[in-house]
Amino acid sequence: MTQDLSVPAVGPVRAQLLALQDSICAALEAVDGGAFHREEFPGERGGLARPRVLTGGEVIEKAAVHFSHTCGASLPPAATARKPELAGRSFEAVSVSLIVHPRNPMAPTSHANVRFFLAEKPGAESVWWFGGGFDLTPFYGYEEDCVHWHRAAKAATDSVDPDLYPRFKKNCDEYFWLKHRGEPRGVGGLFYDDFSELGFERSFALHRAVGEAFTGAYLPILERRQGEAYGQRERDFQLYRRGRYVEFNLVYDRGTLFGLQSGGRIESILASMPPLVAWEYDFRPEPDSREAELTERYLTPRNWV
Amino acid sequence: MTQDLSVPAVGPVRAQLLALQDSICAALEAVDGGAFHREEFPGERGGLARPRVLTGGEVIEKAAVHFSHTCGASLPPAATARKPELAGRSFEAVSVSLIVHPRNPMAPTSHANVRFFLAEKPGAESVWWFGGGFDLTPFYGYEEDCVHWHRAAKAATDSVDPDLYPRFKKNCDEYFWLKHRGEPRGVGGLFYDDFSELGFERSFALHRAVGEAFTGAYLPILERRQGEAYGQRERDFQLYRRGRYVEFNLVYDRGTLFGLQSGGRIESILASMPPLVAWEYDFRPEPDSREAELTERYLTPRNWV
Repeated sequence: MTQDLSVPAVGPVRAQLLALQDSICAALEAVDGGAFHREEFPGERGGLARPRVLTGGEVIEKAAVHFSHTCGASLPPAATARKPELAGRSFEAVSVSLIVHPRNPMAPTSHANVRFFLAEKPGAESVWWFGGGFDLTPFYGYEEDCVHWHRAAKAATDSVDPDLYPRFKKNCDEYFWLKHRGEPRGVGGLFYDDFSELGFERSFALHRAVGEAFTGAYLPILERRQGEAYGQRERDFQLYRRGRYVEFNLVYDRGTLFGLQSGGRIESILASMPPLVAWEYDFRPEPDSREAELTERYLTPRNWV
Repeated sequence: MTQDLSVPAVGPVRAQLLALQDSICAALEAVDGGAFHREEFPGERGGLARPRVLTGGEVIEKAAVHFSHTCGASLPPAATARKPELAGRSFEAVSVSLIVHPRNPMAPTSHANVRFFLAEKPGAESVWWFGGGFDLTPFYGYEEDCVHWHRAAKAATDSVDPDLYPRFKKNCDEYFWLKHRGEPRGVGGLFYDDFSELGFERSFALHRAVGEAFTGAYLPILERRQGEAYGQRERDFQLYRRGRYVEFNLVYDRGTLFGLQSGGRIESILASMPPLVAWEYDFRPEPDSREAELTERYLTPRNWV
């Protein structure tokens, strides 16, 4: 089937995202040996939610890989404060959103999201954009992992336009910033939103390239680190650092907060939360330790490629 | 020393709160056997922060009992959106804020906060109010504990004005509400803010009565439950339910969010976070279990006295 990609439409993006969810789940299952719990909930007006969660695996302590297609008859004015021209339009949004919390503290947590939004009104041009990206959150720093991750990010965006990587890398550093801690969530990656500047066909190509780059960016790192030796000290540090992830998601993350406010399915939205988390009062890593190195050498904006 | 309480002033409230912090810490140490880590940080313009945290105790897994006195030369307009008449005034705020996370899942988490705010401008009447209250968050419900807690709350407020308990109890149910879960944080207690309607002397009496009622309200419950038998199942449920506490504090709690936004000392603000927390995807308690009973019989607004 050849699709006409000169006209923005949800259909081809939805089909691509359903396939992407399947392939990412299969790739993670192959590494872990466990299986995702698969659910399917039909939504209003042809919408569909396919939350998938894997817990208690050998390699993956918890992962969520969700597909969602939301359809609405009319955007409420509250949802369109930033874009008043959208008020009253019908809309559709499709996305794949995922997070992987590995068991081994030497393996980083990763997150990816790719989404497409389309709002229509009879007699008016449709309004649409893509958004997405992926970012990596190590507990223990490995230079080669960060370089590999960013090279994969750059290769994905370069395949569409070499100007994109530096912009999206900077966006990512800015977005995943814990203001109250004065530190980034991790070592970054890509982040973009409201993206339509290349027209539908090339923007969709970017969207595909980013989503499809995830497994190649992450799995080699996960496979490399899942067998590293570690003890209680490293596990404790992992649980402690996971607290930062919770703080980011509940205080800053737009997707999470929008989901909580808009009455989405809470268990799907909060499936991103780490399985086990610790908060330790006024923890300070020992000087010159690998725990101190994380903040000093990795949680600081750097050029990795 | 006899104090003139016809004129609102920070001095006597500060002195009372410093003593309250000492007595609550001493009472918790007596139950636990462990000791609070005591710190003292002088603030600007005569301010003072005394964060105190106890961790890893026999009975108390983590407790934070903070005193804070903040002084500012001028309230920023952003802080006075609700009360524009305060813009540009100098201000002082004193508070004791505490949380206790017991180790035993049969013992409830408790939280209390009492605070006083005063804003002044030469040639104008001072603006001031009290705020505070306390609330209880059980993991396993005990009717007699809830009744005791609310009787103590009622006795404290009745000592000043019998009209207050029903109002403050209702405020508490409304404030500690997890909108995205459609459930309250716990079984409530008291909550009030912007309170000045009885004049300074009687409002201060209320403030004292609430703060000083905390140990009598909570310690008998903690002592009763700290020796109850429990196993992994109860521990797991406690860690799971603590996730709700995190969700409330990071998504809704005004004090926490104000602290994060205003650049307060993060370790003090987030000392309220539970020491260990779990998120489990789509957990559903077994029908007719004690875990199911918590939601069905306790996490529902009830009259306890």
